[in-house]
Amino acid sequence: MQTSAFAAPSSAEPLAPWTFERRAVGPHDVQIKITHCGVCHSDIHATTGDWGANNYPFVPGHEIVGVVSRVGAHVTRYKVGDVAAIGCIVDSCRACEPCAEGEEQLCEKGMTGTYSGIEKETGRPTYGGYSKAIVVNENYVLSVPKALDPSRAAPLLCAGITTYSPLRHWKVGPGQKVGVVGLGGLGHMGVKFAKALGAHVVVFTTSPGKVQAALDLGAHEVVVSSDPAQMKAHKNSFHFILNTVSAPLDLDPYAQLLRRNGVMTLVGAPGEPHTGPNVFTLLMGRRSIAGSPIGGIAETQEMLDFCAEHGIAADIELIPIQAINEAWRRVEKGDIRYRFVIDMSTLAEA
Amino acid sequence: MQTSAFAAPSSAEPLAPWTFERRAVGPHDVQIKITHCGVCHSDIHATTGDWGANNYPFVPGHEIVGVVSRVGAHVTRYKVGDVAAIGCIVDSCRACEPCAEGEEQLCEKGMTGTYSGIEKETGRPTYGGYSKAIVVNENYVLSVPKALDPSRAAPLLCAGITTYSPLRHWKVGPGQKVGVVGLGGLGHMGVKFAKALGAHVVVFTTSPGKVQAALDLGAHEVVVSSDPAQMKAHKNSFHFILNTVSAPLDLDPYAQLLRRNGVMTLVGAPGEPHTGPNVFTLLMGRRSIAGSPIGGIAETQEMLDFCAEHGIAADIELIPIQAINEAWRRVEKGDIRYRFVIDMSTLAEA
Repeated sequence: MQTSAFAAPSSAEPLAPWTFERRAVGPHDVQIKITHCGVCHSDIHATTGDWGANNYPFVPGHEIVGVVSRVGAHVTRYKVGDVAAIGCIVDSCRACEPCAEGEEQLCEKGMTGTYSGIEKETGRPTYGGYSKAIVVNENYVLSVPKALDPSRAAPLLCAGITTYSPLRHWKVGPGQKVGVVGLGGLGHMGVKFAKALGAHVVVFTTSPGKVQAALDLGAHEVVVSSDPAQMKAHKNSFHFILNTVSAPLDLDPYAQLLRRNGVMTLVGAPGEPHTGPNVFTLLMGRRSIAGSPIGGIAETQEMLDFCAEHGIAADIELIPIQAINEAWRRVEKGDIRYRFVIDMSTLAEA
Repeated sequence: MQTSAFAAPSSAEPLAPWTFERRAVGPHDVQIKITHCGVCHSDIHATTGDWGANNYPFVPGHEIVGVVSRVGAHVTRYKVGDVAAIGCIVDSCRACEPCAEGEEQLCEKGMTGTYSGIEKETGRPTYGGYSKAIVVNENYVLSVPKALDPSRAAPLLCAGITTYSPLRHWKVGPGQKVGVVGLGGLGHMGVKFAKALGAHVVVFTTSPGKVQAALDLGAHEVVVSSDPAQMKAHKNSFHFILNTVSAPLDLDPYAQLLRRNGVMTLVGAPGEPHTGPNVFTLLMGRRSIAGSPIGGIAETQEMLDFCAEHGIAADIELIPIQAINEAWRRVEKGDIRYRFVIDMSTLAEA
């Protein structure tokens, strides 16, 4: 099927219209007509090659919501007309221990990314959601609950699951004090989830101008992290800190805020390692620094259902696809509260 | 009580004989005539001020075994003639949550160190085990099982508990692959404990000359960490890595060896932070880097009992106290398998 898209012709060029061929719908495949696609900072890193080489033309986008437009003969869980979603994963080995346990994001053979991957069925590069349609095996398709606005649901597929998964893995809940470092696309979802899970939520921001915004999102407290007195007041007090910052920073001041057995989990991915923490800071409190990547398919579905149940969605700015290059410039400056979502009806059919 | 000791007159001078006064035995105190004291690298760091200022004359030593020589009127758990031990902790607040839970090493008010501390009863500096006797509240005294050789038990009080505690906290056991990085005083105990707990134990050493020694200690495999091919063969395979290295090193090559949800715990304390790991290494596997400091009093007793039950003790070289300065030079060069222990009968009474 000929499919229209916006693609980067090379790592250095802006996105521009392009047409390519999606694979035919196989017996276990679901074809989705894309209605919305979130704009993740990873889209930019992948396109420019910050995280390694890619195939060009390159079609980014892994926060995909749309309507099922065709299903293969053996598909049982989706039918034409369903609102469905695709996140960062379109395939995995389906045989290793992580896959068997629903952690396809940690597939030992390497998951197949929605972009930057190689499609097993065709041997061609995978092309992401800045496109009119996508074809994916039903095991990697999510169901979007009716209670969710599709445009505000799109960012849940990456920003949502990336923050939900570690909060669940480390059992965040009532009686716990939880920090969220950084208030971008990931951070704003982290605040909403941590609050819905019953924790006392403290946002750390370098920008005094974001204090009110953090409170508006539901944070119980906000700390301006450049103020040593504010930081010191929270020493040894956090059960868990979700660190969403994707630029290298000194981890030690945050590690010092963890209480005994506290964990700081990194979900942002800077190209360079962070500095610190000091080893004594880890020792004196049996503290941990961990990382967590997106989440598995089953947990992503759980997260979407959790959002429907708790009235949670991303705060977005809807744009036509023709505005994507300007939107990327604003993402790079952090000038967005909190996620751009592309209205894919603005992209003509091929 | 006048007590003979070896002390550093200043941070820059060698240890030399000194005499000071131990406090009188209070109603809850136990007085111990010290028979053996292990030589920990921390003794040197503390004396030279690497970890911050100290009081001089300075008496190091926190791996103490001896015989109870007097007990206070209300002491219930010890009697004259018992073989007893003192580790790194001689007091703590006894009221905070960690103290209540038997984690005095993480006391929120700060534990009182066997040296580098201030004795609550007198307001004077605490003086360590390179001395003829010590007086400690019975709650901070350990019982040495009869099955243990006192000289080989002494290093258990720091090197032993420092490695035993994280292996227990992270539930190391049968079916797990466990790495031990570094084969000094801590590492050699880590190998013995991990093996006794039923794990498959792999030692990492930079020295090809230590391979046989590691196997002799009970390691199932040994990896020369400077050989990239040997390192690569173990990628994604470790449940737990105990990192005993106390010099700054690049954590990334070791973090890459952890399997999904694997944890590397640091028990060495370099003055400078380690470098890395790369954040992607943590993300892709949900790996953690943690720290762990010694252990609490109850867990130290558990460890001593575990050693008696499993026939575990430190491998030592017994020295007279007059050889201490030469022994320290050898500790600094790593020229000891695996722990010096001072025969305190070589120190004359005051």
